[in-house]
Amino acid sequence: MTIVTETSARGRMRLAKEAGRGVGLLDDATKARALYAIADAIDGAADEIVAANAEDLDRGVRHGLAEGLRDRLRLDAPRVAALASAVRDVAALPDPVGRVLETRTIGGGIELTKVSVPFGVIGAIYEARPNVTVDIAALALRSGNAVVLRGGTAAEATNAALVAAMRGALDEVGIDPEAIQTIDAFGREGARELMTARGLIDLLVPRGSAQLIETVVTESTVPVIETGAGVVHIVIDASARPDWAREIVVNAKAQRPSVCNAVETVLVHRDALGLVPDLLDALEDAGVTVHGDEAIRALSPRVVAATDEDWATEHLSLDLSMRVVDDLDAALAHIRTYSTHHTESIITEDVANAERFLAEVDSAAVLHNASTRFTDGGEFGFGAEVGISTQKLHARGPMGLPELTSIKWIGRGAGHVRS
Amino acid sequence: MTIVTETSARGRMRLAKEAGRGVGLLDDATKARALYAIADAIDGAADEIVAANAEDLDRGVRHGLAEGLRDRLRLDAPRVAALASAVRDVAALPDPVGRVLETRTIGGGIELTKVSVPFGVIGAIYEARPNVTVDIAALALRSGNAVVLRGGTAAEATNAALVAAMRGALDEVGIDPEAIQTIDAFGREGARELMTARGLIDLLVPRGSAQLIETVVTESTVPVIETGAGVVHIVIDASARPDWAREIVVNAKAQRPSVCNAVETVLVHRDALGLVPDLLDALEDAGVTVHGDEAIRALSPRVVAATDEDWATEHLSLDLSMRVVDDLDAALAHIRTYSTHHTESIITEDVANAERFLAEVDSAAVLHNASTRFTDGGEFGFGAEVGISTQKLHARGPMGLPELTSIKWIGRGAGHVRS
Repeated sequence: MTIVTETSARGRMRLAKEAGRGVGLLDDATKARALYAIADAIDGAADEIVAANAEDLDRGVRHGLAEGLRDRLRLDAPRVAALASAVRDVAALPDPVGRVLETRTIGGGIELTKVSVPFGVIGAIYEARPNVTVDIAALALRSGNAVVLRGGTAAEATNAALVAAMRGALDEVGIDPEAIQTIDAFGREGARELMTARGLIDLLVPRGSAQLIETVVTESTVPVIETGAGVVHIVIDASARPDWAREIVVNAKAQRPSVCNAVETVLVHRDALGLVPDLLDALEDAGVTVHGDEAIRALSPRVVAATDEDWATEHLSLDLSMRVVDDLDAALAHIRTYSTHHTESIITEDVANAERFLAEVDSAAVLHNASTRFTDGGEFGFGAEVGISTQKLHARGPMGLPELTSIKWIGRGAGHVRS
Repeated sequence: MTIVTETSARGRMRLAKEAGRGVGLLDDATKARALYAIADAIDGAADEIVAANAEDLDRGVRHGLAEGLRDRLRLDAPRVAALASAVRDVAALPDPVGRVLETRTIGGGIELTKVSVPFGVIGAIYEARPNVTVDIAALALRSGNAVVLRGGTAAEATNAALVAAMRGALDEVGIDPEAIQTIDAFGREGARELMTARGLIDLLVPRGSAQLIETVVTESTVPVIETGAGVVHIVIDASARPDWAREIVVNAKAQRPSVCNAVETVLVHRDALGLVPDLLDALEDAGVTVHGDEAIRALSPRVVAATDEDWATEHLSLDLSMRVVDDLDAALAHIRTYSTHHTESIITEDVANAERFLAEVDSAAVLHNASTRFTDGGEFGFGAEVGISTQKLHARGPMGLPELTSIKWIGRGAGHVRS
């Protein structure tokens, strides 16, 4: 087992940077072997990990951590096994490094190739979800990057146990264990150092609440990818098929309400109001509370009054905002005002309206006659998901392993000079 | 001619955002037509532009602006014609928007496509170079984006004349002229608003001095692409061909010393010292002053003593730092310490050393037996250059039109829900 001797956040980032140079040059088979070793080490350390997690949970109870947060923090034996299994899935993915993306001959004979390369060091800031500790470390290593993890003090003991297991596994297979670093011990000051470590952190990924992401985006001077927050809309157009409207809205809200691709607001074209009573019944059967405007409330006494705040709210619960719009223009205007640019869907039989919606809505994913729940790395066939980018720089929508690489231009000449 | 009525920087950014929605949906031919109209308008307004520029130059003289800066600011009739001609070149480039980058079927029948889309609004912060005003506006429009320009108060009158001509041209061809905005009039406060306009500016590109770029990168909360600064290295390995070493180093330093891809430091393997006297002669013939370490100075009395500061300096002049290294490891360590990750080249006949250099040096462009001057959008065949990215997120190295686009996932289903 590796002893951690570096006692400053910046010192650990420097170690990650150095280790990253070696990790970036590893071949496919070695990186895969490292990940299988990590999975085995997590399985082997399951008892220690669960015991460390019990410590964190105890402290959570003493500090009044909400039950929902404690559930996300909790690791029992089956959850630890699932973590290890997810690492094996990442190990089996193709190497995203070294892909030749373009070749051309320039300058009268220089052979120029554009190849994918690792970023170097990926930083992650997240809240008390120990699964992110393992997920991000595995994805970073698979793509040839070192990683610096800042998972929050509520999960400090769990994260320390997971990181110790992962570092031990790297050591065993002959890879510098400094490629995986945790800076949980350095509190808020450590997080601040991570966000401003220009030259040491090549990419910072925040995962968690809208507030955490906002803080990271506004306070960071290192490159950041904004992920996650989803005030997701479905438009039920005048010509929507009632059965598809019902099935898609119920699926998008109720199948898993706590995730970012769940729908939060349904906009109903005035001419489609006839299908709403059935839709409200189906939503009620699924346990959903609808927050509606006047026109929706007139259709059912079970609809609660929507407030202005509802339109901007990511409920992440079995709550759904619903309002009537006069036409597609009004729906697009509402989406422009309230969307977080994650996913929006339209249910319509009118192809022209569908195409207009797909062209004009400025979101990572735009769908026609499909549930918003499909915006997901697994569903898109990526094999793994780093997060869902809601920004437009570098990556947009579900991010897989290739999004954890940058590029490099390599030119091979024979004494070429520019004329 | 369009009247500018909006009197706040933020108001102008809002107008750009709205106009950007329309510009993003324009087809290829319309965008090309708009650019040809802009080129004609610049030609047509040449007298006004030169007169406005004379105002800026007069003020520059009064305020003691250095002659080098005044030269960059100066627009005479031939330079105005060259600006218009560059816009016509951009008009002739292929549309980077609407490319289908990937297609796949997911969820048992949803047709998913990944297409290139405009960013929306591109911001640019630069110093008194009026050519950037036209270049960036043309590149942004060609890629379906609106643009907000902040070119500095020293060029305010020139930029205003250029922007007026460009906006007038948009109006003529029926495109919302608010797609081109200047916020020079709002001074430093306007620049600060631009850097923090989350939700209004989708991408900010700084162009100019290392200090300007550092300020923009550290103070911005909107996504930024870091461009430009180049402390560029050439390594002359033990087995380097003397003629190639001489030709490449002279070309890389002297062909155009003021640009970011010009070499700043040459690292000479101790076993290649024999070729240095000839190299020093050739550099002297080209007017270059060499700043050398002890071993280099021992070879010629014309070499001045290098200071520690030299290794970190982007001279941008006919000055060149030169030092001897014991081996390739020492050269790589020097580059790790001082490189700005722009371009480095190795001159060697040893293929293993070349491949190690190309793999290990962490720069946008890495070259073997070729001049560093090739790292350029034009040389790479991009047809136009937005800048040279020295970061790893989104774009790295020369950026062409495709780098001014993001992507969107479009899914077309038939009532698909997630199971």
